[in-house]
Amino acid sequence: MLPWRSWGFWRAGLARPGALGLLAGRRGASGASGPLAGAGELRGEPDRYGGVSVRLGPQERWDAAAFQRRLQAAIQQWRSEGRVAVWLHIPILQSRFIAPAASLGFCFHHAESDSSTLTLWLGEGPSRLPGYATHQVGVAGAVFDESTRKILVVQDRNKLKNMWKFPGGLSEPGEDIGDTAVREVFEETGIKSEFKSLLSIRQQHTNPGAFGKSDMYIICRLKPRSFTINFCQHECLRCEWMELIDLARTENTTPITSRVARLLLYGYREGFDKIDLSMEELPAVYTGLFYKLYHKELPENYKVMTGID
Amino acid sequence: MLPWRSWGFWRAGLARPGALGLLAGRRGASGASGPLAGAGELRGEPDRYGGVSVRLGPQERWDAAAFQRRLQAAIQQWRSEGRVAVWLHIPILQSRFIAPAASLGFCFHHAESDSSTLTLWLGEGPSRLPGYATHQVGVAGAVFDESTRKILVVQDRNKLKNMWKFPGGLSEPGEDIGDTAVREVFEETGIKSEFKSLLSIRQQHTNPGAFGKSDMYIICRLKPRSFTINFCQHECLRCEWMELIDLARTENTTPITSRVARLLLYGYREGFDKIDLSMEELPAVYTGLFYKLYHKELPENYKVMTGID
Repeated sequence: MLPWRSWGFWRAGLARPGALGLLAGRRGASGASGPLAGAGELRGEPDRYGGVSVRLGPQERWDAAAFQRRLQAAIQQWRSEGRVAVWLHIPILQSRFIAPAASLGFCFHHAESDSSTLTLWLGEGPSRLPGYATHQVGVAGAVFDESTRKILVVQDRNKLKNMWKFPGGLSEPGEDIGDTAVREVFEETGIKSEFKSLLSIRQQHTNPGAFGKSDMYIICRLKPRSFTINFCQHECLRCEWMELIDLARTENTTPITSRVARLLLYGYREGFDKIDLSMEELPAVYTGLFYKLYHKELPENYKVMTGID
Repeated sequence: MLPWRSWGFWRAGLARPGALGLLAGRRGASGASGPLAGAGELRGEPDRYGGVSVRLGPQERWDAAAFQRRLQAAIQQWRSEGRVAVWLHIPILQSRFIAPAASLGFCFHHAESDSSTLTLWLGEGPSRLPGYATHQVGVAGAVFDESTRKILVVQDRNKLKNMWKFPGGLSEPGEDIGDTAVREVFEETGIKSEFKSLLSIRQQHTNPGAFGKSDMYIICRLKPRSFTINFCQHECLRCEWMELIDLARTENTTPITSRVARLLLYGYREGFDKIDLSMEELPAVYTGLFYKLYHKELPENYKVMTGID
């Protein structure tokens, strides 16, 4: 594996800029294209992976040409010091600095809200910098009422073929899988529900609906907490409680809905432990953070390794 | 649910710009701040969700101020027509247009490589536009050799605590989960392997190593195809085939590695069908695309619904 692209390789460096400041500009490294004296400096913070980060403030007054001269000189300096990468963080109102950086070889790493980050790889071979988020996550809720053997299904208003499917939608930033399922089910159908398990995961690439990125689509099993449907007229054409066996048999549904209906039928008859991934919350290595872990339920004696030879 | 944020709601509009062109600028909508006559126009393509997309070409010659006047007039025009959102696509070398757009309320939706996309919400209430990718995906491979009951583990070179863990790393754009696992295992350890199943999923948010985005970490069960270790010295301090029961018992490991070792032990003793999510490739709704679906193996009679009452 390429160490620069491994988990956490850039983590500490990105999260905590180094204590040293690299100054470039006034030194006038050879190859700089213009005069720099008295014209301010570009300040870079080194990271422990051999890169350097430059954070432009909202107060920088240079014009684009003056910035480009400083950046070019700084790159020469960092290259001579053996730095392998430059990270350039630019507030949106300072975006006049983007094109000059691009003309020196920088490209966008990502941008969000009011700032962008550009990178330039100075090391050998192709860039080994870690990429940005690659997936959107969508979650659907299969709300199954064991007492009536009925399942909650909708038909989208905005699709040409009105197939039965589970209510669902995209995760909000920072939202847990189960919370997305419960929220989307409520917003679409008015049904309150509770997360029980994760049933299935689909991965799909170059998705036009994901701006060309990949899509992870997760189906959860939910237990209903209310039963009176009050569906969103903007989104849904129909919404109903359908016999699970009818959903498992109908052709008027998507392949993934049909498959999960059959999986649910199997689980209902043979035990949901046959199909469920259960969830547990555990503390992360980052202080104060937690993660949620999903896998097949593990018998308690294996969990604690008592009586296991 | 909010229909503008649902799956596919913006899809067709984003993927296929409408046939109509919205012209704004020359019409000089009331409220425009400057003269527009003879100075060119901003061309917007409507989408079927009430938004409009503007794609700036590499040849636009306006300076920032002239662009801002045109954009302001166009926004007035689109607002008067009831448009709810504007998407602004800007090539990186034309980034001088970003700050003027930001001063009119636009912000970054995303940026990658050589272009950025900004959005402005014109509708009522907070923006209901779909977000960009929210997750990075990492995959680890638990390579278990049933004949020796040994499992492949590594110790990272770049961590303070050298805990035993499974080899793994971040997915490349467009790469399938199982392919990431096999590639990362080979790059880190020199061991060739084959994807068998998906075992566990972890979701974690506001991850510093993911530029503040969320992280999906997936552990796969792999079967070894070679056995001679040749590990990456840059990344790994150690790499070895360890007795599975020793990994399940040791304290010198991460909580998630320990849990998955116990899950594997359970699967080895009671049958891997107890712990595996199997994979199947199915055709997507987009012509020519496929997706991979993971869930607990479904008995064949349930899959085809024969003999199921």
